[in-house]
Amino acid sequence: MNKTNVLERGIGINYKKERSEITLWAPHAKSVELFMCDKNIALPLQKQQFGYWHTIHNINVGDNYYFILDGEKQLPDPASLSQPNGVHGFSQVVDLNDFRWTDRSWKNPALQDYIFYELHIGAFTPAGTFAALEEKLDYLKELGITAIEIMPVAQFPGARNWGYDGVFPFAVQNTYGGAGSLQHLINECHKKGLAVVLDVVYNHLGPEGNYLSSFAPYFTDKYHTPWGKAINYDDAWCDNVRKYFIENVLMWLRDFHIDALRLDAVDTIKDFSPKHILKEMKEYVDELIAATGHKHHLIVECDLNDTRFIDPVKEGGYGIGAQWLDDFHHSLLVAAGHDRKGYYADFNGIQDLAKSYRNAYVYDGVYSAYRQKTFGTKTDKNVTKQFIAFSQNHDQVGNRMLGERTSTLQSFEMQKLLIGAVMISAYLPFLFMGEEWSTPNPFLYFTDHSDRELIEAVRKGRKAEFAAFHLKGEAPDPDAEETFDNSKLNWDIQCIEPHKTMLSYYKTLIGLRKHRPALYSLIKENLYVKVNEKQNVLILKRWYNDEEILCLLNFSKEKQSVAISGSGEWYKLFDSASVKWRGPADAPEKVNKDVTLQPESLIIYTNKHV
Amino acid sequence: MNKTNVLERGIGINYKKERSEITLWAPHAKSVELFMCDKNIALPLQKQQFGYWHTIHNINVGDNYYFILDGEKQLPDPASLSQPNGVHGFSQVVDLNDFRWTDRSWKNPALQDYIFYELHIGAFTPAGTFAALEEKLDYLKELGITAIEIMPVAQFPGARNWGYDGVFPFAVQNTYGGAGSLQHLINECHKKGLAVVLDVVYNHLGPEGNYLSSFAPYFTDKYHTPWGKAINYDDAWCDNVRKYFIENVLMWLRDFHIDALRLDAVDTIKDFSPKHILKEMKEYVDELIAATGHKHHLIVECDLNDTRFIDPVKEGGYGIGAQWLDDFHHSLLVAAGHDRKGYYADFNGIQDLAKSYRNAYVYDGVYSAYRQKTFGTKTDKNVTKQFIAFSQNHDQVGNRMLGERTSTLQSFEMQKLLIGAVMISAYLPFLFMGEEWSTPNPFLYFTDHSDRELIEAVRKGRKAEFAAFHLKGEAPDPDAEETFDNSKLNWDIQCIEPHKTMLSYYKTLIGLRKHRPALYSLIKENLYVKVNEKQNVLILKRWYNDEEILCLLNFSKEKQSVAISGSGEWYKLFDSASVKWRGPADAPEKVNKDVTLQPESLIIYTNKHV
Repeated sequence: MNKTNVLERGIGINYKKERSEITLWAPHAKSVELFMCDKNIALPLQKQQFGYWHTIHNINVGDNYYFILDGEKQLPDPASLSQPNGVHGFSQVVDLNDFRWTDRSWKNPALQDYIFYELHIGAFTPAGTFAALEEKLDYLKELGITAIEIMPVAQFPGARNWGYDGVFPFAVQNTYGGAGSLQHLINECHKKGLAVVLDVVYNHLGPEGNYLSSFAPYFTDKYHTPWGKAINYDDAWCDNVRKYFIENVLMWLRDFHIDALRLDAVDTIKDFSPKHILKEMKEYVDELIAATGHKHHLIVECDLNDTRFIDPVKEGGYGIGAQWLDDFHHSLLVAAGHDRKGYYADFNGIQDLAKSYRNAYVYDGVYSAYRQKTFGTKTDKNVTKQFIAFSQNHDQVGNRMLGERTSTLQSFEMQKLLIGAVMISAYLPFLFMGEEWSTPNPFLYFTDHSDRELIEAVRKGRKAEFAAFHLKGEAPDPDAEETFDNSKLNWDIQCIEPHKTMLSYYKTLIGLRKHRPALYSLIKENLYVKVNEKQNVLILKRWYNDEEILCLLNFSKEKQSVAISGSGEWYKLFDSASVKWRGPADAPEKVNKDVTLQPESLIIYTNKHV
Repeated sequence: MNKTNVLERGIGINYKKERSEITLWAPHAKSVELFMCDKNIALPLQKQQFGYWHTIHNINVGDNYYFILDGEKQLPDPASLSQPNGVHGFSQVVDLNDFRWTDRSWKNPALQDYIFYELHIGAFTPAGTFAALEEKLDYLKELGITAIEIMPVAQFPGARNWGYDGVFPFAVQNTYGGAGSLQHLINECHKKGLAVVLDVVYNHLGPEGNYLSSFAPYFTDKYHTPWGKAINYDDAWCDNVRKYFIENVLMWLRDFHIDALRLDAVDTIKDFSPKHILKEMKEYVDELIAATGHKHHLIVECDLNDTRFIDPVKEGGYGIGAQWLDDFHHSLLVAAGHDRKGYYADFNGIQDLAKSYRNAYVYDGVYSAYRQKTFGTKTDKNVTKQFIAFSQNHDQVGNRMLGERTSTLQSFEMQKLLIGAVMISAYLPFLFMGEEWSTPNPFLYFTDHSDRELIEAVRKGRKAEFAAFHLKGEAPDPDAEETFDNSKLNWDIQCIEPHKTMLSYYKTLIGLRKHRPALYSLIKENLYVKVNEKQNVLILKRWYNDEEILCLLNFSKEKQSVAISGSGEWYKLFDSASVKWRGPADAPEKVNKDVTLQPESLIIYTNKHV
């Protein structure tokens, strides 16, 4: 294993005009050729150490090609940068260094400054392309978010997919606009002061168009994942599988100027190596940062409540920057009255929500009835900016049978309370596209497979999943184009009520979060929570220097009277029940003893006169 | 999950006369009864939390019983302490507290003082029982070893088995003499000043008589091991599987006064929990030590070259005391001329042996062609007494097709050199029964299954294994009684030559190791190795205070002349080629410049006049 050079692409085609490097890992092949489709010529590659094949040749951007193994198997490039005809077609030469970046003055902020906005390229705009998203950047900027998080864009089968069925980790989805178009989008984001987070999938590859096994042992049957064989991170031949994904990490950060990667479901990455692959990725990212001077973050989705992922390397952790915080979502939703089916069964409402405000994990070494085992670790040594909090995300919405958003499941007042609960937390806030105007249309699970058996299998799989939640009825057909179309955001209604008010509400709340030091400063020691279970009221205090912020959250459907402790006067900063947000009534501007909370409402007071 | 009480047995039958506690974990059962075979009565157990069933009853030692699940399934106790009729029969009540221990003055030594002697109860003596082994303790004491390491004794199918097919981890093999007889043996060992190490298997259960799955999800198909489904250490229901094995650890240490456990092949224990099961076992052992004041050690066999197992807990490790050091064995054997097939292919002889003397692992983060991946970690932070070195063990001998020992594979001179190489290392020395008199009979793989299909499968499996080493021909039938009989030690030949000389040689060498501070003190900084590859000569220097020890190892079949550096005179301490050990010639008693080494010989010099 040669060490990976962080500054240069080391696999697939590294375009350098007449000196382009062609590298393929195919340890069991007897011969490897590069077949140039247009010129109809096959160039032999030379065998190197560790099963690599290599040659240098004069090629052109836009050339279409296949690899030919053993003189007979014609296959697209596992490290293809472009699949213009989809996952089953030829690969195409791309020069990632061709794009003229003008984002030199961009500075990737610290994670503390991230306010995430998750979006799906296909469903975010009517056109469903990177270019169409560019048109919305001013809107997003004005909304107040600081980072867009793009659901996976690695080439997947067909034109419609959440992205988790990607099979060419290095190729940017052709129907979105491909690599150059993504670079252009990111450049625009940076110019406008928006960070870009990309969702990447290193735990499995999709079921259709996955040709990797024809080249090398990318998978192992030592471990099972929900999606079949696990990616081979620790079995024989793993070195170059690891290198493949490390090269992928480096490509996004180096060649696309991605600010942060969000690694999908890392709990299903099975790796008993002395150095876990995430730790190794982190080391390479650090090396890249040292070499270029540009900051980058790593974020994980992880269903383990195990801080080893985000603990510093010197304390035995993998050194990841932050992780999604499902326990906050689940306890928040149950507090809001969500039925306690499936994984929600483990959560009790505001007591658990209070614990999550304090400790991030609700399951921090206690028995989980849903998981049927003791679950989680303590977070005492972690800082709050390592956790990302949300009341909605693509999974929580889209994995419902009918893909209903909170907009159709909760009252208007409760929707305001939910995002309020997120914004006042000491965690990094996260929005899912469209929630800011309470868009009513669903976000459904959609695919565009060409294999009929697979289409049927996906349908059945979804059904089984819903059965776990005791849901009956028919789910929309994932493979139907209509299902995708129904999931596209409806921008037209932004300007009509009540959507217009909700949008304005979100802007105000985000603004408060960003500019009020006691909310913006993420110091867990400066935080106090208590609950009144009978009232279903949660009281959260946060402070910074001489400012104290008092947040009163009423999750009940009745008015509740709350006694306020402390000596001085409290001045109102924010009131979700205000008539200006179409609420029932405004709370007093100034209180010092008791306050009456409207049903499903949030009031924020400060000790400093506004 | 209730916390395990380290001082008292918490599962199966905890015998307390009329207040005996009966506890069974059977989370899916609708009813559980204890069926007393002799009285022909069924006592109902009451359901408790987490799938446990419990009752208190008046029972007698020696009572035979089954558990009955759901009124129909009659099964032996998963935590049975005795299976008088074998793995398919009833369980029997045992009172582990009945034995009168007289080993109060015994003090378990530090690992540094361990000189291991591995033995198989069935094959060590003609009778093949614990009682018969007691007759040999004086012999072992006189040999100079300080600890016997007993191959697994958990009840296995039939009367003949290495022990790794055990299916009742808490029951002591009936044909060896059962629990009381093992307690008696350990008491005798302690009275004679011998420590007792027990080999335990926590990575799988045997294929015959394994009734655990009838009770609860003890296994998971999330991971594959060489022996099928993995033990469920991290999946749903794992809490009580973990408890089961933790109770087992505690039983051996607390109720049998075992000094150290040797955990079999922990690399096949798959556990992604925040706290690895080995780390949790170590915590419980520490708690037991704190409660009783008796020291205990944990040792692992681990094929990962990963120090996380033996690193201290505060540095992110599992805190295990020591591990077997295969790389030393493999490089030593290749240095001795062993053919480089199978895993030996990775080793180059004395250069690798020198590295192993220095760093323990030869594969410490370098590419292994045999494993087809980068393998191992650095050992810079570990101490040498964490590694156990051997030139033979049950696996290295018994996993050969014909079970040949070094005694029939190497010359007499080379055998002396091999054990010499072990004894002069800074690691803990380890012997395999019979090597000390160069016993010529093999140690074969033997079983005694009752299932014909299984017998055939085992035969086939062995064949496939040998195929990996490119071995041809017929392996002895594992299930034939003759195979077992041929593996029993031949004690009669101890007193005839050349066995008598070998035995005397071992005693002298062990004595030297124990009493010469520069050899006994295991300080890796006080060690220097160099090799002359052309001569196939390795020079090892070790020192302590003002004593220096110079070891000259000639692995070649020719005489070699070696120049000795340093100013002063060197006095001979030991000479494997001496005519008193049936060698070709004695080296000079005193040297200061050059010395001629006999073929396949070891000379030890000291700078201090003897």
